[in-house]
Amino acid sequence: MLLKNRNLFGIKDLSVEDIMAIFEKAKEFKALSRSKIKKNSLLRGKTVVNLFFENSTRTRSSFEIAGKRLGADVINMSVSTSSIKKGESLIDTAKTLDAMKADLYVIRHSQAGAPKMFSKYVSGQVINAGDGVHEHPTQALLDGFTIYETGKKFKDLNVAIIGDILHSRVARSDIYLLKKLGANVTLVGPATLIPDEFKSFGVEIENNLDNILGKMDVINLLRIQLERQGDSLFPSLDEYHNFFGLNDERLKKMKEDAIIMHPGPMNRGVEISFDVADCKQQVILDQVENGVAIRMALLALIIEGSE
Amino acid sequence: MLLKNRNLFGIKDLSVEDIMAIFEKAKEFKALSRSKIKKNSLLRGKTVVNLFFENSTRTRSSFEIAGKRLGADVINMSVSTSSIKKGESLIDTAKTLDAMKADLYVIRHSQAGAPKMFSKYVSGQVINAGDGVHEHPTQALLDGFTIYETGKKFKDLNVAIIGDILHSRVARSDIYLLKKLGANVTLVGPATLIPDEFKSFGVEIENNLDNILGKMDVINLLRIQLERQGDSLFPSLDEYHNFFGLNDERLKKMKEDAIIMHPGPMNRGVEISFDVADCKQQVILDQVENGVAIRMALLALIIEGSE
Amino acid sequence: MLLKNRNLFGIKDLSVEDIMAIFEKAKEFKALSRSKIKKNSLLRGKTVVNLFFENSTRTRSSFEIAGKRLGADVINMSVSTSSIKKGESLIDTAKTLDAMKADLYVIRHSQAGAPKMFSKYVSGQVINAGDGVHEHPTQALLDGFTIYETGKKFKDLNVAIIGDILHSRVARSDIYLLKKLGANVTLVGPATLIPDEFKSFGVEIENNLDNILGKMDVINLLRIQLERQGDSLFPSLDEYHNFFGLNDERLKKMKEDAIIMHPGPMNRGVEISFDVADCKQQVILDQVENGVAIRMALLALIIEGSE
Repeated sequence: MLLKNRNLFGIKDLSVEDIMAIFEKAKEFKALSRSKIKKNSLLRGKTVVNLFFENSTRTRSSFEIAGKRLGADVINMSVSTSSIKKGESLIDTAKTLDAMKADLYVIRHSQAGAPKMFSKYVSGQVINAGDGVHEHPTQALLDGFTIYETGKKFKDLNVAIIGDILHSRVARSDIYLLKKLGANVTLVGPATLIPDEFKSFGVEIENNLDNILGKMDVINLLRIQLERQGDSLFPSLDEYHNFFGLNDERLKKMKEDAIIMHPGPMNRGVEISFDVADCKQQVILDQVENGVAIRMALLALIIEGSE
Repeated sequence: MLLKNRNLFGIKDLSVEDIMAIFEKAKEFKALSRSKIKKNSLLRGKTVVNLFFENSTRTRSSFEIAGKRLGADVINMSVSTSSIKKGESLIDTAKTLDAMKADLYVIRHSQAGAPKMFSKYVSGQVINAGDGVHEHPTQALLDGFTIYETGKKFKDLNVAIIGDILHSRVARSDIYLLKKLGANVTLVGPATLIPDEFKSFGVEIENNLDNILGKMDVINLLRIQLERQGDSLFPSLDEYHNFFGLNDERLKKMKEDAIIMHPGPMNRGVEISFDVADCKQQVILDQVENGVAIRMALLALIIEGSE
Repeated sequence: MLLKNRNLFGIKDLSVEDIMAIFEKAKEFKALSRSKIKKNSLLRGKTVVNLFFENSTRTRSSFEIAGKRLGADVINMSVSTSSIKKGESLIDTAKTLDAMKADLYVIRHSQAGAPKMFSKYVSGQVINAGDGVHEHPTQALLDGFTIYETGKKFKDLNVAIIGDILHSRVARSDIYLLKKLGANVTLVGPATLIPDEFKSFGVEIENNLDNILGKMDVINLLRIQLERQGDSLFPSLDEYHNFFGLNDERLKKMKEDAIIMHPGPMNRGVEISFDVADCKQQVILDQVENGVAIRMALLALIIEGSE
């Protein structure tokens, strides 16, 4: 068990073997979620705490469903009702929850590194569910698993990640995972949103989507964070859609077997047109389904491995 | 199994046979809720999502308890923490949850028709827990079951529904159910709150409660929505209590075996006086208890039927 | 079973035998929480409602974990989403939940006496999780159990409770418990925050911490409620820390085997210095762990006893 007694802070910490072991386990749990009784008792008597300092119905629910399908007791804690408001530090929160003997903590936090710091004060394991602009490893794993399931080989696979790379933890985790597995990654977006230092990741940078569209096997669209509009780095939504939005015209330029990914929730009409969001080549809902399977796999591998 | 593989959007879609099958099943689960171990494993391995776009502790808790007593995994999602705020459409929310393989969605939404639209994008079933001023079918079913349990026959039963008919989804669902089962329905309230088009439902309209009180077998009081005060259609709370509030004096004019219903939460002193709310003839708490039983029956019939 | 069919409103209602029975049961459940499968099925088919009219992630989670580890169905209700906002009274809320057949209600409320009033309208049992400045009995029990576990004898044990005694339900419950068990209690704090009437509890009152520090076996620090700053009764945070904060210098004056307690969340730098909060003599995290065990014990004894 490679993940034995391990936290998951980021893709950076995983070996190719780890990733493949997670994919294999996810396959099994995806089948369970599609069966009549979508539940087992693997984690009966284990306590999983969903500790979200930023709201996210999607990710929180995905982990909650994953935990419950494995028979764990899942406790949701969101920042708005938490004692953090009363001034308690993250460290004291960690120590307190540790004393309640949780087995695993799923943590989303606006600050990079928060899950790692948290983990130093608990005896249970930690899964990073998104920390600032650092990493969002479960998203990258579900993205990778979705590609893997199509039968495409990662070696020399051409993947474009399009959008606000600068502020995206999804982009960072995806880059780490794809490079580890041997894919070629091209980052596409306005120059203001892809600083040159990204070159150190071993990726290509491209500001004109149409230049590379025809060569890509995977198009991964990032979510435009509407709340950043007005930020001087940003084009307007219309401009963005014109230059980087995936529309019918661009769809035609793509390889016939290329797939379209999006971490959701989508802004239809911005990073993706209304029609393309539902086209045959999108695997966006597979990503959501795989998200539950990947999280089940991680919970199972990490908690079982820690015994 | 009449409800096999069916959604429940409204009473309109149910046959008399459906309704009676639900009542019979509810009887069984009411007994379970009164027993020592108030739980079975009927829906083990099933995922029920409580998706509330409007707050309602009462209805949400009733469904949550119902699901848990049948052994289902219940996931609560409320709009205030949901990605809807991030601009995701109801349709994309539906598709996303569908990908997580939920078996049944309980939906409350401020817009009429939202549960039906939602259902088109999921493979699981949908129960409408109140949509705008359209329908609130589980409330009508629990109301009907409460009458049924008293031993009263629906045929020619005289039922008055009193209050703000115009804005009430409870009133609409109750009317559909009672008419289907053969009861006579009289709508009572200020003329501004009972438009003439309600006559097309085959009901009587009466603006003077005292005219009909003595003939009624069932008095169903609607909740006055305090937040509508100031709306020009509305009398003041005092006026309302004087003309339509059920008080001791009016209680004396009622048939001795007539029953008093209210969907809760009550505004004591407005639609019902403090004393009458606790009188012998009220069945208001039976309605609450029956709410859990009816929801258990629906979850069981719909989910089991869909296999 | 001494707690058979009983509510727990306050320590005042418990006998020494009750308290010892709870401690013995808590020992057993503490071991369960430390085992591999930290769960049993003792309360399978029972419904526990966590009804919090004041936010408290800590206490709510502690009860939620306790209930789930015993196999109960736990329903969380917080005031912000509750029908209380719609004007329903506490009594009608009680009656409504009673109709849903919950077995036990955990209630936190800003008004003293609320849990007791609530209990009159339900057939299930009630545990007070903090009511106004009245009592917080589960905190006192976990405090007592933590002392008990150290092997110290309560008879003639010297315990100081330090801080805002006036506004503290923890202080009141602790005083009742410690006096019942035979300890000597000294209240320490600014004169404005320890009114003379506390003398009637059979305690000592001391305004100078340094006068008594060397004689104490247990130092129980209350949380300074930052939201009360600006209240004329209160010293500034700096003044408070100077006069009553437990710092390194004061730590040295303490008995070597004295223990330091705090109900959490701590304000490091106010009632306790950063270093002392982590020192060898603190048992603050034992208190948190024991909180789950004590709550499991209470749920088990009360619900099982009520059959």
